[in-house]
Amino acid sequence: MNIKLNENFKMLGGGYLFSEIAARVAAYRAQNPSKRVISLGIGDVTRPLAPSVATEMSRAARKMSTRDGFVGYGDTQGTPELRSAISKRYEARGISLNQDEIFISDGAKSDLGNLFDILGDNEIVIFDPIYPVYIDSAIISGRKVRFLSANEENSFLPSPTFLPKKAFVIFLCSPNNPCGAIFTREGLGAWVDFALESGSLIIFDAAYESYIRDASLPHSIFEIKGAKKCAVEICSFSKMAGFTGVRCGWTVIPGELPIHSLWKRRQSTKFNGASIISQRGALACLSPLGVRENQGSINYYMENARLLADFIKEKGIFFVGGENAPYLWVKQPNKMGSWEFFHHVLHSSGIVITPGEGFGKSGCGFFRISAFASRKDVLEAIERLNAVL
Amino acid sequence: MNIKLNENFKMLGGGYLFSEIAARVAAYRAQNPSKRVISLGIGDVTRPLAPSVATEMSRAARKMSTRDGFVGYGDTQGTPELRSAISKRYEARGISLNQDEIFISDGAKSDLGNLFDILGDNEIVIFDPIYPVYIDSAIISGRKVRFLSANEENSFLPSPTFLPKKAFVIFLCSPNNPCGAIFTREGLGAWVDFALESGSLIIFDAAYESYIRDASLPHSIFEIKGAKKCAVEICSFSKMAGFTGVRCGWTVIPGELPIHSLWKRRQSTKFNGASIISQRGALACLSPLGVRENQGSINYYMENARLLADFIKEKGIFFVGGENAPYLWVKQPNKMGSWEFFHHVLHSSGIVITPGEGFGKSGCGFFRISAFASRKDVLEAIERLNAVL
Repeated sequence: MNIKLNENFKMLGGGYLFSEIAARVAAYRAQNPSKRVISLGIGDVTRPLAPSVATEMSRAARKMSTRDGFVGYGDTQGTPELRSAISKRYEARGISLNQDEIFISDGAKSDLGNLFDILGDNEIVIFDPIYPVYIDSAIISGRKVRFLSANEENSFLPSPTFLPKKAFVIFLCSPNNPCGAIFTREGLGAWVDFALESGSLIIFDAAYESYIRDASLPHSIFEIKGAKKCAVEICSFSKMAGFTGVRCGWTVIPGELPIHSLWKRRQSTKFNGASIISQRGALACLSPLGVRENQGSINYYMENARLLADFIKEKGIFFVGGENAPYLWVKQPNKMGSWEFFHHVLHSSGIVITPGEGFGKSGCGFFRISAFASRKDVLEAIERLNAVL
Repeated sequence: MNIKLNENFKMLGGGYLFSEIAARVAAYRAQNPSKRVISLGIGDVTRPLAPSVATEMSRAARKMSTRDGFVGYGDTQGTPELRSAISKRYEARGISLNQDEIFISDGAKSDLGNLFDILGDNEIVIFDPIYPVYIDSAIISGRKVRFLSANEENSFLPSPTFLPKKAFVIFLCSPNNPCGAIFTREGLGAWVDFALESGSLIIFDAAYESYIRDASLPHSIFEIKGAKKCAVEICSFSKMAGFTGVRCGWTVIPGELPIHSLWKRRQSTKFNGASIISQRGALACLSPLGVRENQGSINYYMENARLLADFIKEKGIFFVGGENAPYLWVKQPNKMGSWEFFHHVLHSSGIVITPGEGFGKSGCGFFRISAFASRKDVLEAIERLNAVL
């Protein structure tokens, strides 16, 4: 074969972070078949789906075998019912969106990566450490990335102060993955102001907004004045409702942005809508019963986060997160390399953590703990980690 | 906002074809609320899902609310069970694939478009007329497209004879959408030979392979010797099993191709797997009962195709397709423009067809009729069209 390939793939480091971790854990398991591995690694939910949501999807699937209930191609942008329910969710926070500004997807990861299809050759601003999809997608598209170090000094939330006033594409994630830090209104406002002044676009990843407990903190960038002129928001049912396997998310692109029509064209050309069954389930997540049931799981995970936080505090180890986010960002108690430490923890305790360096250079010396485990596993993990940390 | 956009979008003609048709039909409906519109337009299935498939998805959804049955992130490439069942399906045709060569997706359209992510700046060869996703995706990626006219002279299946021996990316679709034509082994073999000699890559779209009735015709490009060295194949449960709303498909990328690892990296970075419920349904489609039930629907649609074909023959109008494909490609009985004729048919009979020009310049003077309707609608459409054609 003699065709040209996308050479940017060569610039990617190793495999995708969580594929890499999965491979290393699989190797460990093969060597240690008797050891029960506990994962506090990948941010995957573990609680069963809310009963009302599963019931609705079950009903939706059954209806598909009836003449009146069968549904073929739907609106690529998502069912009107689901988009209307999402717009009501925003309305409850004082944000007015029309249905045409909401695009249902098969999940945040797809949209985060695919947004590059509609953008030109802009410099990309990405925090370091960060969820690797932003970086990897930017690299695949051949974009130049400017990293802003997220560290103790800036409480893991860099401000735009030191950026030149030029038009960037800026990825923000709050509550932050992996650091668990979260923007205040003022902190987020500074980014919106910068974007408006510089002509930048903010891609706001709100995948963890359901974990915010402090009522003063913004859930959506559209709570900030002017954001509709400079921001898109990506959200998901994955962490809010345990949809990591079901697959459904959404992206808000304000109608006044020039990229609205481009995204619409991109999606109608290269996408055919999220599964109708997943969309019916997503709709059930937004019903009062669905919200209540899902809140139960969120509270459960956040109690895990509290237990983990208390343990790490007790050990006198520095960490952030775990209060308005399901992640704790913990300082290594030693000078090992990130992957060396990952290996050390796995082999000495059978616990999977995520090595900080996997999220970027500035992640060195830190590791991420996820609260998405069963209570039993969290308690046992604390016991096992007590001997290692 | 001052960021750079993907300027290639400006090169796209109008909206995506089927979005465009939907908009025109909606306008007609608004003006003619009492007229029952019958669609032989978009290739969307209408028969309910196979009972065994719907039951399996219903069960899968219910299990998601149980501790033991819940599933979070799966393998981005798809469940091992589904990939194994697909590889067995190929095996039955004498094609040996390992599971790692099969990538489950949310549908053929996504993969057809997203494949451009891993390719460099190659010239693209596309038949004209053709399913518009190939062209639009190529244009969005800024690629140069070389069209091969599919016409009466070449029985709507151009051969590679007149191409220079250089490395192209070649889209082939057989059974063909929109023409309903289908490659013989020899015809397809000529393309494989050309690809091997020129270093080209063939992207083979087999979305309609379940409609092949003539046992001598190839269902998969991998039935042709050498294809594993030069081709990928994209297939889908949409037309095979009525999954246009459920969303599940697959792409085969032979392990020996250099793009195998690139696609794996692309998918693990920018995709998170097809819905687990859809994948469970897809697996049920490949069980003996699922195959039998789905074959019933395929036979039903093909009987529609026969009725439509008989009618058009009777009118003495030239057409192809409808024998090994659910589409008929029909010559216009007049010299109207394609969209003018679409408008004429819709307004005089309430029947939606697809204007040939929507599939490319060479589609002028033809229109596509889809057999994916209820028997009742097909019979009524024949009656109404009798007055127009």
